Amino acid sequence: MAKIGIIGAGSWGCALAWLLHNNGNQVTVWSIMEDEVSMLKNCHEHKDKLPGVILPKEMEFTTDLESVAADKDVLVLAVPSPFTRSTAGKMAPLIKEGQKIVNVAKGIEDSTLMTLSEIIEQEIPQADVVVLSGPSHAEEVGKGIPTTIVVGAKRKDTAEYMQGLFMSQVFRVYTSSDVLGIELGAALKNVVALAAGMADGLGYGDNTKAALITRGIAEIARLGISMGGRIETFYGLTGIGDLIVTCASMHSRNRKAGILIGKGATMEEAMNQVKMVVEGVYSAKAGYALAQKYQVNVPIIEQVNKILFEGMPAAQAVSELMLRDKKVENIDLRQLYQNSVEIPW
Amino acid sequence: MAKIGIIGAGSWGCALAWLLHNNGNQVTVWSIMEDEVSMLKNCHEHKDKLPGVILPKEMEFTTDLESVAADKDVLVLAVPSPFTRSTAGKMAPLIKEGQKIVNVAKGIEDSTLMTLSEIIEQEIPQADVVVLSGPSHAEEVGKGIPTTIVVGAKRKDTAEYMQGLFMSQVFRVYTSSDVLGIELGAALKNVVALAAGMADGLGYGDNTKAALITRGIAEIARLGISMGGRIETFYGLTGIGDLIVTCASMHSRNRKAGILIGKGATMEEAMNQVKMVVEGVYSAKAGYALAQKYQVNVPIIEQVNKILFEGMPAAQAVSELMLRDKKVENIDLRQLYQNSVEIPW
Repeated sequence: MAKIGIIGAGSWGCALAWLLHNNGNQVTVWSIMEDEVSMLKNCHEHKDKLPGVILPKEMEFTTDLESVAADKDVLVLAVPSPFTRSTAGKMAPLIKEGQKIVNVAKGIEDSTLMTLSEIIEQEIPQADVVVLSGPSHAEEVGKGIPTTIVVGAKRKDTAEYMQGLFMSQVFRVYTSSDVLGIELGAALKNVVALAAGMADGLGYGDNTKAALITRGIAEIARLGISMGGRIETFYGLTGIGDLIVTCASMHSRNRKAGILIGKGATMEEAMNQVKMVVEGVYSAKAGYALAQKYQVNVPIIEQVNKILFEGMPAAQAVSELMLRDKKVENIDLRQLYQNSVEIPW
Repeated sequence: MAKIGIIGAGSWGCALAWLLHNNGNQVTVWSIMEDEVSMLKNCHEHKDKLPGVILPKEMEFTTDLESVAADKDVLVLAVPSPFTRSTAGKMAPLIKEGQKIVNVAKGIEDSTLMTLSEIIEQEIPQADVVVLSGPSHAEEVGKGIPTTIVVGAKRKDTAEYMQGLFMSQVFRVYTSSDVLGIELGAALKNVVALAAGMADGLGYGDNTKAALITRGIAEIARLGISMGGRIETFYGLTGIGDLIVTCASMHSRNRKAGILIGKGATMEEAMNQVKMVVEGVYSAKAGYALAQKYQVNVPIIEQVNKILFEGMPAAQAVSELMLRDKKVENIDLRQLYQNSVEIPW
């Protein structure tokens, strides 16, 4: 049994609280919002964000960051990506040397081009930070539907400890040493999900969507490998796997925003209508900036940027993608690999 | 303008006839069935297999193999895979040295474990055989919906000639030298589509399906790389791309059969209900035989075989997949690559 603090009581935080409790751990959940904590204390269910998943009576809920952080074997950081830096900053004085922190949010910080684990390490240098990512709708995890996921860590023993903690009969956990590849794939796939949504909104079919997904992950892989990630990761559960789930789902805000833009809405109109943070809009900008920095050709991310920020009609962008130079399908990745980093474990 | 003979008047043969005619070529279509040719001559539409796609008045239709094969720049072989060998055998005496033949069917011959292009080359050694594959529902191609596809050829000049022939504003063609990788991925993805269908039939969610797709293509890649294919191909349009389309579509017979089996039907009951060849059933057997030959671990293909041929309940197979040993997500593919073949062009 481990003592676990979960920081953030959204759908994913609550689903992981449920899972970790069922695995025999003692779980405390924190939220910054008084009324959210009251609801969870009184109803043992997050009625807005994860209805139908009943949390056990013995689970504790708090708005006190100090009490959730104190004396825990593991902290799970489950706040939305725009709040990762500020939350980590507030946590820092409370965190002991070597504290294991699992980040489960996805994103790249616009202004610094840093991944979320890099941000947490910057804010809390004494922590042992790992990431958890993969194709995992919270709604399905909370129903016990078979799910697979990856824990990425610099240290092998930490990765295997987390694998043991999270794994269950319906939640299969793989380990990986490629933290950067996991985070890049998880953030940039939202840009491709936007593009796939646009294709849906334009009335195109499964052929077009499959093309955007496949060519989209290929350019993410090219960029990510250039930055030091590994091809296996981009084509694994946290890359293509998560992208497939996102593009199949009507729950995805990125896909939903894409559909609206494909139907003719501007970026602002789409974001207003979706009413929540559309992560892919920020990642699109960050992804294009990274591609320029590392001099990688990313035609789909480039067209998404033109649509979002330069008002190019979505249909014209698709047409430009279809009519580019005739190409060989894939470059020989062995060459890229020669420049790639050593695998730590 | 090229003179093109299309052998096989199913949905894919007709869609490619329509596309190639629109690209300015002179097209003749052959079918073994008199009534099919009569219908096409009279209605200029395949009312059963590709309704709504009107073929032009000047297109010729014939049941005479000699006349469709004679004096053509390119022959497109579009018969279902069980008829590839027999049709190629009948064509052989009619084929001139260096005749370009494009195979567009998918499969692995059960008894010999040969791919379809290998079969055609064995039957017609004087031909220059290429393959065309990718995420391309005929119904969508026939409506002009944006589609991407790959032509695989041993000779670069042949690949580029085909790219020029097929490419249009809505049909983007990439070239590849990895004919084997294209054919293995295209055939074996049907086994994963069966498994994904079973997950749907069992009532599992998007998380489970994404897991099966992602881990499924990973084991196809491991097997295919061991046989001499390239990772880029398995993660390209003809591998994961085509698998995504298959698993998203209610048109897929493989997925449909999987859903029935997931709901409790036996293989025989499922095949009877689907009423057509369920290619994945044969490829499952061939894939497992290849995995044993090349000593590659293929847990999903193995479980599909147990369900199909040993009567294991689908739910038990999923549970066994979830509870296998704790694993690292992906092996380092650089090691596999060291054994891989040189890329011809």
